Amino acid sequence: MNPDRLFSPNPTTRDIARQLYQTVAKLPIVSPHGHVNPRLFADPNATFGDPAELFVIPDHYVTRMLYSQGISLDTLLTGDHRQTWRLFCENFYLFRGTPSGIWLTHELSEVFDVDEKPSASNADRLFDSVSDKLSSPEFSPRKLFERFNIEVLCTTDAATDTLEYHQAIRQSGWSGRILPTFRPDGVVNLDAPNWKTNIEKLSEVSGIEVKDYKSFIQALEQRRAFFKSMGATATDHAALTPATADLSDVEADVIFQRALKDESKPNDAAQFTAHMLMEMARMSIDDGLVMQLHPGSLRNHNEIVFQKFGLDKGADIPLQTEYTRNLLPLLNKYGNDTRLTLILFTLDETTYSRELATLAGHYPALKLGPPWWFHDSLNGMARYFDQVMETAGIYNTAGFNDDTRAFCSIPARHDVWRRASANWLAGLVVRHIVDMNDAHEMIQDMAVNLAKRAYKI
Amino acid sequence: MNPDRLFSPNPTTRDIARQLYQTVAKLPIVSPHGHVNPRLFADPNATFGDPAELFVIPDHYVTRMLYSQGISLDTLLTGDHRQTWRLFCENFYLFRGTPSGIWLTHELSEVFDVDEKPSASNADRLFDSVSDKLSSPEFSPRKLFERFNIEVLCTTDAATDTLEYHQAIRQSGWSGRILPTFRPDGVVNLDAPNWKTNIEKLSEVSGIEVKDYKSFIQALEQRRAFFKSMGATATDHAALTPATADLSDVEADVIFQRALKDESKPNDAAQFTAHMLMEMARMSIDDGLVMQLHPGSLRNHNEIVFQKFGLDKGADIPLQTEYTRNLLPLLNKYGNDTRLTLILFTLDETTYSRELATLAGHYPALKLGPPWWFHDSLNGMARYFDQVMETAGIYNTAGFNDDTRAFCSIPARHDVWRRASANWLAGLVVRHIVDMNDAHEMIQDMAVNLAKRAYKI
Amino acid sequence: MNPDRLFSPNPTTRDIARQLYQTVAKLPIVSPHGHVNPRLFADPNATFGDPAELFVIPDHYVTRMLYSQGISLDTLLTGDHRQTWRLFCENFYLFRGTPSGIWLTHELSEVFDVDEKPSASNADRLFDSVSDKLSSPEFSPRKLFERFNIEVLCTTDAATDTLEYHQAIRQSGWSGRILPTFRPDGVVNLDAPNWKTNIEKLSEVSGIEVKDYKSFIQALEQRRAFFKSMGATATDHAALTPATADLSDVEADVIFQRALKDESKPNDAAQFTAHMLMEMARMSIDDGLVMQLHPGSLRNHNEIVFQKFGLDKGADIPLQTEYTRNLLPLLNKYGNDTRLTLILFTLDETTYSRELATLAGHYPALKLGPPWWFHDSLNGMARYFDQVMETAGIYNTAGFNDDTRAFCSIPARHDVWRRASANWLAGLVVRHIVDMNDAHEMIQDMAVNLAKRAYKI
Repeated sequence: MNPDRLFSPNPTTRDIARQLYQTVAKLPIVSPHGHVNPRLFADPNATFGDPAELFVIPDHYVTRMLYSQGISLDTLLTGDHRQTWRLFCENFYLFRGTPSGIWLTHELSEVFDVDEKPSASNADRLFDSVSDKLSSPEFSPRKLFERFNIEVLCTTDAATDTLEYHQAIRQSGWSGRILPTFRPDGVVNLDAPNWKTNIEKLSEVSGIEVKDYKSFIQALEQRRAFFKSMGATATDHAALTPATADLSDVEADVIFQRALKDESKPNDAAQFTAHMLMEMARMSIDDGLVMQLHPGSLRNHNEIVFQKFGLDKGADIPLQTEYTRNLLPLLNKYGNDTRLTLILFTLDETTYSRELATLAGHYPALKLGPPWWFHDSLNGMARYFDQVMETAGIYNTAGFNDDTRAFCSIPARHDVWRRASANWLAGLVVRHIVDMNDAHEMIQDMAVNLAKRAYKI
Repeated sequence: MNPDRLFSPNPTTRDIARQLYQTVAKLPIVSPHGHVNPRLFADPNATFGDPAELFVIPDHYVTRMLYSQGISLDTLLTGDHRQTWRLFCENFYLFRGTPSGIWLTHELSEVFDVDEKPSASNADRLFDSVSDKLSSPEFSPRKLFERFNIEVLCTTDAATDTLEYHQAIRQSGWSGRILPTFRPDGVVNLDAPNWKTNIEKLSEVSGIEVKDYKSFIQALEQRRAFFKSMGATATDHAALTPATADLSDVEADVIFQRALKDESKPNDAAQFTAHMLMEMARMSIDDGLVMQLHPGSLRNHNEIVFQKFGLDKGADIPLQTEYTRNLLPLLNKYGNDTRLTLILFTLDETTYSRELATLAGHYPALKLGPPWWFHDSLNGMARYFDQVMETAGIYNTAGFNDDTRAFCSIPARHDVWRRASANWLAGLVVRHIVDMNDAHEMIQDMAVNLAKRAYKI
Repeated sequence: MNPDRLFSPNPTTRDIARQLYQTVAKLPIVSPHGHVNPRLFADPNATFGDPAELFVIPDHYVTRMLYSQGISLDTLLTGDHRQTWRLFCENFYLFRGTPSGIWLTHELSEVFDVDEKPSASNADRLFDSVSDKLSSPEFSPRKLFERFNIEVLCTTDAATDTLEYHQAIRQSGWSGRILPTFRPDGVVNLDAPNWKTNIEKLSEVSGIEVKDYKSFIQALEQRRAFFKSMGATATDHAALTPATADLSDVEADVIFQRALKDESKPNDAAQFTAHMLMEMARMSIDDGLVMQLHPGSLRNHNEIVFQKFGLDKGADIPLQTEYTRNLLPLLNKYGNDTRLTLILFTLDETTYSRELATLAGHYPALKLGPPWWFHDSLNGMARYFDQVMETAGIYNTAGFNDDTRAFCSIPARHDVWRRASANWLAGLVVRHIVDMNDAHEMIQDMAVNLAKRAYKI
């Protein structure tokens, strides 16, 4: 890997980018939002399995691309692992110019010392050599966590989660800092799969019998307090749209009761989610947990794939998203309150300059999260910088988070962000928009400080 | 300030940009649309007040950014001015990489000889030195108007305005050319704050008793004629959407009468505004006033801030905007008429390549205004050039206007446009898309000629 | 014309772009979608007429720009041709920085040896010299087809077309490969102008009396088989939106019968088109014809121009377009079927990163067409590469097609694509995102292979 990769080809810009990057390249990684399984760290002897289990099967970025070219998901996900790995290697050319290509190349090179491109001809050899490494103690999740120099890693956990793995990590005496994040979608979105079961689970884990809206709120508050006691600093919320609305307790209860009786009306779930976002903001003001909102993904667009293979198989497709009107109720009620931090994400880049930067550049409670999912890429970051920063300034953004379940890709992802940030700042310096002193402060902020501040870490 | 600021770091592009820029850097400023208060120029002894009154309190770009970081608007807007200035200086780092940062740096340096970055440590000293300058006769609005080499400055004035300050300017014998612009939103949008009072005012100033739709139209025509007699060349219209619709006189009268009786139905205001845009186009064909349309801002999104501090406090948030269908009625009726010039603006950059450039590249009556408000920035201009010009060509655009109430920022804003234009043209030259002869003509057009032609100045 | 035109000014990037470009500059042109009239090639002695008939009158890119500046369409389209040519030359400056400017300059230089900019002063001279050339045998359509090194050119033909010119071309023994494309909009969209007449024509040419939905489907299948026998590899479909929906045969028949009786209900046409897109996908799975969808153009926005001058006069304006929900029914039914290739186009660039790249990066049946119409431009391509490729990869795209009726502009258009592709790849190489080996393969794919593969040529 070239040390100047991802930087502008302009020599002056590149020199400045390199200078700035070098000051943050080795900083500890702060990962305030992601989906790594805490179980990996609960057991000191856990392993990542074989190369297919690490690089292919759980990575929906990888499986979607292979599937898009007609490769069978059956074979990839449920077949022989060496065969899955072969398909991956043979088709590695599909990732040319994609962020997955950059991350995978980085992981293979930096973590596994593999500096050749995967291909049909080296597939078996790579399978063996990576397998060897993966079975050695130095490649356990805990060892890699330390090697990756991760200062803090936040997971995402259902409201009904007992956080047993987080408990185990704490009790093990291991020094790695892994914090839970409170994600109540499964109980808050009435149309969530298994909602009723989730509510029963919520009663159970909270010790509060959830039989109406009031007890539901109490149980949620109990869970938030528990998560907070376990180190959580944030909550996370998915919603089809960022609609927010204020229902009275009575209205909320009527809807909630209908759901308990399986008698929900068509608009109930949407209204209730909109209301619960308000309610979550209220609770955040009370307990100080930072609130994250990830709207606009139409999950499981491909029903056949969903029926056969379940969630997170690369078939979640973004929707056009509206923030200005949708967030109006919430922002008018809580947006002026400096005790609230609401971090917004989007899959609709058209909202960057039009809605998100203008809202975040005004409301004290708002911050913008980094480019998300498909936009967590070199061009996605460049667009984000160019479309957000002029209006919001960097200080209304929340730095970077990797949002990944692919643990071994974390250093690669943060490295791309740090390079992209350095490169963007170099572009400002070379055009005399900011000076080097400012740029040096800004690169530190973008690499770690903004994330720490926004997430109260 | 570096003389090559804002130009591409590529040496060839930069050389060409510099060459082109130098041919327009000193051209007089043509400012065909803005919100400077004409009162400043009516009294030869007027002053700008202290630094907080000039740089902070009236500038919603500045106050929104400070407020977004939790700084109290109470303190900023109604507190001690030296304290307001201190808060501004301490937090000047928030403007890194923003257009406000560029404009403020330019103003401080070029107008006030301040070449240090404002900060906590120099705040008091800067307050004193800028205050000194502001109280000297050479820093009166008229003197700065002359020093800024402004050829013409257009203000924006309510339909009910008596234009007394414009009268005073004319009568004073001062040579500065300051022209009014007819903005009838307060009487045309039935849901405007104080609409009824505005209608009474309209009756009064026009001498026509506005008691129905017919007399309303007559009064508007009277006002347009008066504005024209006072030098106006244009009108300006704000609307939530660019919807246009043709009501019969009877339909229009029914809606108007309902409004007079405080009995408006929910859709009345929207329908009436849509109709009045058509009517304004008709009048423009008659009297030759250029028509401007600024749609898509949801004003006063933050109700608490609005209740407490009023309009224009940085809480106006853009909305997604649709032009293709919305303008269909107006363009089908008047878009083929070369006597009409309708200059369109947008806060929704997604419409540049999809709707605005394609419409302006076809209809003889249409021109596109420059990047507006949040998009009046270096990146905003680059996007505008890249997304509009290929389809519309530069000759269907209206050059630049600064649209500002911050008088002292006018040279900075035009300088950014001229640099951005030169830089864009240099990018075309260096890729052999246009040659230097063409680029030399184009930079003159972009700097002043297009604006003069579009606004009939 | 500069040999390095359109490349980045960065010397390293430019060098690499040039290297890559040179490997594809002379490759045969593959033109899998366009609107060239096959009649031109049916008669070995056909000519292009005079310069106005070749460059101005049929080119809606040219006439729209001239019209937008107030030049009369009457004069341009129906006046003296020398006068039309003069207006074009006098106003050639309007095309500065536009793709038309690039194409026209290329055509004039490469095809007609004209290396001066058209202007008022050389208009007459150019008219004469280009006329001379056009009347010589070496400038016949067939000769230019050969000189342009076109490997295959696909036309677009109504479902009711007898393909007589295609027959004549085949029978003439001429070696040029010109293939029809099946475009059934005129019979499938119930609101198409002259729908009833088209249905009668369909009965006639298919030999199947179209009296109900069932016979309609049979007739369409007959026509597809005929087109296929004549070499067609693809179909093409225009629709206001990409809505898809599955009607039962009975529902479809009810709507179809209403249309036959001129009793269509308001929503019938939209529903039927949505259903027929599904039906066309089904047929494509059966017969292997590649399916193209071009949605989102509001045709004939300017009714006056349409009434007076008809279709395709530069007054078709794009609409915001939604794919994620609209394509859901079709993709759930057929999107997982590798026998289907559905190539999507858009006039709404906001869908690139949000919807199109994410869909194409998942569904095996989907490919993305190149930037279309107003976006078939240097910046349009750059945006497409930057917004599509990271998520879809190049292998879910369909290479380039020129989509033009202006035959002589075909080499210019493919040249822009090849240069833009080489330049984009050079940008990846210079930032070490792909290496030169990969880039060399990718430029071949982008220049011809992807198009051939997607269109099964």
